[in-house]
Amino acid sequence: MGSDSAPGPELAAAAQAYGRWGEPLTLTGPRRLLENRVDSSAFEVADAPEILEMTDKPAEAARQKPRSSMAVGMDLLKRGVADAFVTAGNTGGAMATALFKLGRIPGVKRPALGPVFPVRSGSTVVVDIGANVECKPEYLLQFAIMGSIYAELVLNRPNPRVGLLSTGEEEGKGNDLVRQTAPLLKAADLNFIGNLEPKDLYAGMADVVVTDGFTGNVFLKTSEAVAALLVDWLRTEIRASPISAAGGWLARPAFRRVSRLLDPSEYGAVPLLGVDGLVFIGHGRSTDRALVNAIRVAREAVSAGLLQALRQRLAVALAGVAG
Amino acid sequence: MGSDSAPGPELAAAAQAYGRWGEPLTLTGPRRLLENRVDSSAFEVADAPEILEMTDKPAEAARQKPRSSMAVGMDLLKRGVADAFVTAGNTGGAMATALFKLGRIPGVKRPALGPVFPVRSGSTVVVDIGANVECKPEYLLQFAIMGSIYAELVLNRPNPRVGLLSTGEEEGKGNDLVRQTAPLLKAADLNFIGNLEPKDLYAGMADVVVTDGFTGNVFLKTSEAVAALLVDWLRTEIRASPISAAGGWLARPAFRRVSRLLDPSEYGAVPLLGVDGLVFIGHGRSTDRALVNAIRVAREAVSAGLLQALRQRLAVALAGVAG
Repeated sequence: MGSDSAPGPELAAAAQAYGRWGEPLTLTGPRRLLENRVDSSAFEVADAPEILEMTDKPAEAARQKPRSSMAVGMDLLKRGVADAFVTAGNTGGAMATALFKLGRIPGVKRPALGPVFPVRSGSTVVVDIGANVECKPEYLLQFAIMGSIYAELVLNRPNPRVGLLSTGEEEGKGNDLVRQTAPLLKAADLNFIGNLEPKDLYAGMADVVVTDGFTGNVFLKTSEAVAALLVDWLRTEIRASPISAAGGWLARPAFRRVSRLLDPSEYGAVPLLGVDGLVFIGHGRSTDRALVNAIRVAREAVSAGLLQALRQRLAVALAGVAG
Repeated sequence: MGSDSAPGPELAAAAQAYGRWGEPLTLTGPRRLLENRVDSSAFEVADAPEILEMTDKPAEAARQKPRSSMAVGMDLLKRGVADAFVTAGNTGGAMATALFKLGRIPGVKRPALGPVFPVRSGSTVVVDIGANVECKPEYLLQFAIMGSIYAELVLNRPNPRVGLLSTGEEEGKGNDLVRQTAPLLKAADLNFIGNLEPKDLYAGMADVVVTDGFTGNVFLKTSEAVAALLVDWLRTEIRASPISAAGGWLARPAFRRVSRLLDPSEYGAVPLLGVDGLVFIGHGRSTDRALVNAIRVAREAVSAGLLQALRQRLAVALAGVAG
């Protein structure tokens, strides 16, 4: 019941996922909305009669609506009936419900959002892009550890390079948080390559880039805004004369390939790292294709044993830090 | 002596500025490098035999090299011989020298960098984009006041709309700094329109957007990185087939117009707001055209009486805040 057009995209995604992997998903939502469909062999239903509204306060809703589709989904994870939960619902609601139902992996201070960004030569995980607007150095250290495990297991990057988002590459550049975090990353069992500026991130210099949730959110939203503005300006200028319009028409496939590089629905949903269960949160505007990609990424995380790896390696890493 | 290719671009810019406005500039730098030129009627020379190197520590160099081209230039401002100082030299060095030589306008806590960004419908001043990586709410209030005066006088925006960069438009969204700054902006004699996300900034919703220097710097550098990456991807994809390459060729004027929209050299240099003199800092890679635009903006600031307005209105605004 998450996406803005729910349950349409969710039902279509379930059917496509069944066609692709041959395993029925469990859909959580009001039974009457989900059952008696032509394609109902593609999924099972876990009844969730309550609806989380955009106006619900996330922290309260998690407690007050125990039978929302998010709460029921997280319960399935908790009970081990489901391996991963994918939602295109409200991010704050998903985080609050996950914390309430699943709790944190032992030792984790703050769960974080770690989406995969397209960069010049592949992709990069950026943690955190908005779960924690105020951070301490030790949170960023944990983001680095979790992002590293994610990059290694789900993106298949052995010994992932970890960078710290800053305003300059030189050691000592950045705000207090960056300056206090760098020594922790250096001392940890990580492949820390130092401070990175946004251009280094987009050049693909790191597999994982760590930042506080406020800066990460501004980074994400600035990236989206600039890409949209540029595409818009180009479209306007190309249409301004018949000759350039003809040129634009001939170059359409090139434009389409670039649009696809920028399309968030290609990259699946955003993992919520640090809660004790695999939760992936997609955009409210997720299409069925975006949801199928999210399901694919969730399946990859399950196959790679991401949750077990996070539990085990965090225990080791945090014991090391404590000692 | 500021730009990476100094004094070539500076000499060419001086000649062009003389042709355009009929007034000789004063160039500061080693006399032997600047004199006996064909176009030496276009400028006067204030001898500055010492050179600031990129490796000099800004704060120390300001004191230890009193005859650097920056120090000599700031002295001309201080003595009232010059009305504005334009440099393409090291930003940290320019800020340190300005603070040392000119000091701050009375009441100003932290001078700030406030460049003009191209947005969908015109342009927007963003303060601060890197002078102050750690900020307090009262600094941001001062950035808002200074940015507002700049937008009104230099960009000719009556009653400029002021926004606060954040991770959501709703009141209460953002980090502690944003949440503590919003009430100050609301209470001040400003046309405060609330929190803005990057997409609102690029939509042109505000004339002035306020942020701390760390976030502002990440915003600036992310914008530049995404624009460069997109242009690069488009070029690669367009060249990938002869047909789209032909299309790209036909649409060249459109691409050129968009490149021009993105070109920082169109927007002159960045004003250092809050020091007691008009200082404009350009990019190290500034061309003669960029420097001429910087000189144009500096001339506009002088004609508009920017420095006097900053002194007077800050005195009034800060008295109001203190009361």
